[in-house]
Amino acid sequence: MAAESPSEGAARSSDALARLAEERVDHRFKGLPPDADGLTVGELTGRRRNLFTDGFATPVLSLSAERLEHNLRLMETYATRHALAFAPHGKTSMAPQLFQRQIERGAWGITLAVPHQVRVARAFGVQRVFLANELVDPAALRWISAELDADDHFRLVCYVDSVRGVELMDAALRGARRPLDVVVELAAGEGARTGVRTEAECAAVADAVAGTRTLRLVGVAGYEGEVPRADPERVRAWLRRLVALAVDFDKAGRFAHTDEIVVSAGGSAWFDAVADVFAEIPELSCPVLRLLRSGAYVSHDDGHYRKITPFNRVPEEGALEPAFRLWTQVVSRPSAEQAFLNAGKRDAAYDLDLPFAQVVRRDGTERPATGIEVTALSDQHAWLRTAPEADLEVGDWVGLGLSHPCTSFDKWQLIPVAEADGTVVEYIRTFF
Amino acid sequence: MAAESPSEGAARSSDALARLAEERVDHRFKGLPPDADGLTVGELTGRRRNLFTDGFATPVLSLSAERLEHNLRLMETYATRHALAFAPHGKTSMAPQLFQRQIERGAWGITLAVPHQVRVARAFGVQRVFLANELVDPAALRWISAELDADDHFRLVCYVDSVRGVELMDAALRGARRPLDVVVELAAGEGARTGVRTEAECAAVADAVAGTRTLRLVGVAGYEGEVPRADPERVRAWLRRLVALAVDFDKAGRFAHTDEIVVSAGGSAWFDAVADVFAEIPELSCPVLRLLRSGAYVSHDDGHYRKITPFNRVPEEGALEPAFRLWTQVVSRPSAEQAFLNAGKRDAAYDLDLPFAQVVRRDGTERPATGIEVTALSDQHAWLRTAPEADLEVGDWVGLGLSHPCTSFDKWQLIPVAEADGTVVEYIRTFF
Repeated sequence: MAAESPSEGAARSSDALARLAEERVDHRFKGLPPDADGLTVGELTGRRRNLFTDGFATPVLSLSAERLEHNLRLMETYATRHALAFAPHGKTSMAPQLFQRQIERGAWGITLAVPHQVRVARAFGVQRVFLANELVDPAALRWISAELDADDHFRLVCYVDSVRGVELMDAALRGARRPLDVVVELAAGEGARTGVRTEAECAAVADAVAGTRTLRLVGVAGYEGEVPRADPERVRAWLRRLVALAVDFDKAGRFAHTDEIVVSAGGSAWFDAVADVFAEIPELSCPVLRLLRSGAYVSHDDGHYRKITPFNRVPEEGALEPAFRLWTQVVSRPSAEQAFLNAGKRDAAYDLDLPFAQVVRRDGTERPATGIEVTALSDQHAWLRTAPEADLEVGDWVGLGLSHPCTSFDKWQLIPVAEADGTVVEYIRTFF
Repeated sequence: MAAESPSEGAARSSDALARLAEERVDHRFKGLPPDADGLTVGELTGRRRNLFTDGFATPVLSLSAERLEHNLRLMETYATRHALAFAPHGKTSMAPQLFQRQIERGAWGITLAVPHQVRVARAFGVQRVFLANELVDPAALRWISAELDADDHFRLVCYVDSVRGVELMDAALRGARRPLDVVVELAAGEGARTGVRTEAECAAVADAVAGTRTLRLVGVAGYEGEVPRADPERVRAWLRRLVALAVDFDKAGRFAHTDEIVVSAGGSAWFDAVADVFAEIPELSCPVLRLLRSGAYVSHDDGHYRKITPFNRVPEEGALEPAFRLWTQVVSRPSAEQAFLNAGKRDAAYDLDLPFAQVVRRDGTERPATGIEVTALSDQHAWLRTAPEADLEVGDWVGLGLSHPCTSFDKWQLIPVAEADGTVVEYIRTFF
């Protein structure tokens, strides 16, 4: 099969992104102005409509243009400063426009979790994918193998954590032209998520890989976010185990068939520890790709990630800014203590925290949501408790902060990106 | 503006549904066979692929063709037997193909919760919408008003529960040719969700409606599912309050401008009580539309709704059947007590219960998931605890039962409908 050149890959990416601008605004996309129906997304972007005054219908999730840009820039700087390669986790946004901006800002590639997400990335020309998960599905493996065989510039690395998994992969991949690159996943501890629990078992899995012609061992990886009772010491101790595993494998000649050794870790809670420990990786038999995978930074949040971001420990390195705001409207105010918004579980993340009432807009004026608290979500309503000082009426817009980017992005298929004055300058398409 | 004839409406519906079959299978739709990429949905349907053997990729949510049909038929029979008009809540599935089947089976129309959902229904030609929510957004009201003015056969009824809400609606609707039909929402009790709390306030809201030319009062409604500390007596007591409100309004001449009085209640937990109490509605000044709105029955579930369905109290009237099964694959088995599936919060409902491990498939054989329990969900993984008797390996498929149809449908945009032997006979498109 013909191999695509890098410029062909770039062309595929740019074509597919351009086609996003040609999509019609219609019933598929909630929150958009009903009178924009039938325009293309590109035409609507050109109108530079205002989120607050130009007919957007609540509920509508918005991203801050300035904060999004700030976050993209900050993590690029962070990775560069710490000599880390960066494959931001794309499962967070599943937005090819954001993948593109991440890659333009120097990202090595995009991390993903399941084969469907790889299909999305490939449809938009992403050339390097780190699949931070085991993959044993024959249909998905055959599809990935066909993509690899058709495009020499496509690279995909995925996890292995069991001999049986290696056998299933090998059986599915027989006949492939290019081997599939794999890394052994080291579990974050007893009772933690996926991954091999002991170094001895890691060696057995690596032996199994070496016994195939369809797989090639290129490194080790894991997810420090699952370290039991995580604290800076325990996380660093586990990261050192991961590095030691790479060193041992290298000494044992297990990376003889690669010209680059991959060592990867790093969610959104401990990338400071990853930077520190990966800086200690000694010289190995070939160059090391120290690969960080944080994904939540792109929107950041007003809850969970605000609390756990490593920048709280290293404020001198910067600070992420929460970029989401969910705009909702008060539809009912049945008592002095209660009010109800027209947004619920269909619109807002609710798995880690409830949304936070941040601001109220009435007649073009925005003020803090004093005395207003979200106490529950129904499918299509938010329940508010209002203190005596709360000034809130039916018709008011309430801006909510959210907790957990991954379960915010996935409830919206086309997200307006607004500047501080409300001018919408872009629409981000997601694929979940 | 030209009014559409009913046959034009039907044509619009049938055209839009036909266009769904022309959509391309691509990266937008997870779980579908990667090698079906580029086929139309209609072509893929024609192939009658098998869910288990023809390349579907896990995770994949499936609906049982037989159970879906059973549930649709059962609620049609139930409504007919109890002389109830039926507007199944469409927010559950947001699937125009299911709306169509509900309407073909005699449904009066479709209930919806927010204007975006009305846009979806209108794009597929739904002619009667019961919007079971307050609506005060000017952009959305103007769009609905334009739809009403353009199509005399379109009918929409929505809630009002405050004088301020009525004022906002009136201001947005000035200049409309047809008035918007509204019902006063009676709250289910103190501290319950939206709705007017007292009969005196209901009268004040009705007065406000009567003072406009843009709104027309056609009835009363509410949601017994929010009755505090609900039990059969409390729910019936509240339903009798709702009926008494309709009777009082009628006596007071408040329904003088309608030729049909709407009385509506009924989620998926208490429709037996609704049937009983609505059977007691006395003769009023014009015919009464006793409108039931249950929506979850279409897929039913293996958790919350299985427990609370009224059919548990009236088994002689039938039983709903859980129609969803989420097929997942074991990707990791790091210890004798743990295993991990490739499906998580992105794929399964988790707001009321975790998924239930039901069956294991290996080499074409299906058996009960003995000793296997879902203990947590990550974004893209399910955590399983396995007892000593559990026979589970990497590569096995695990079929999960789900709890809460509303948060299951909304994670899938194209859902294969399979017969008992796995033959996929239809693909249901959702719009969230």
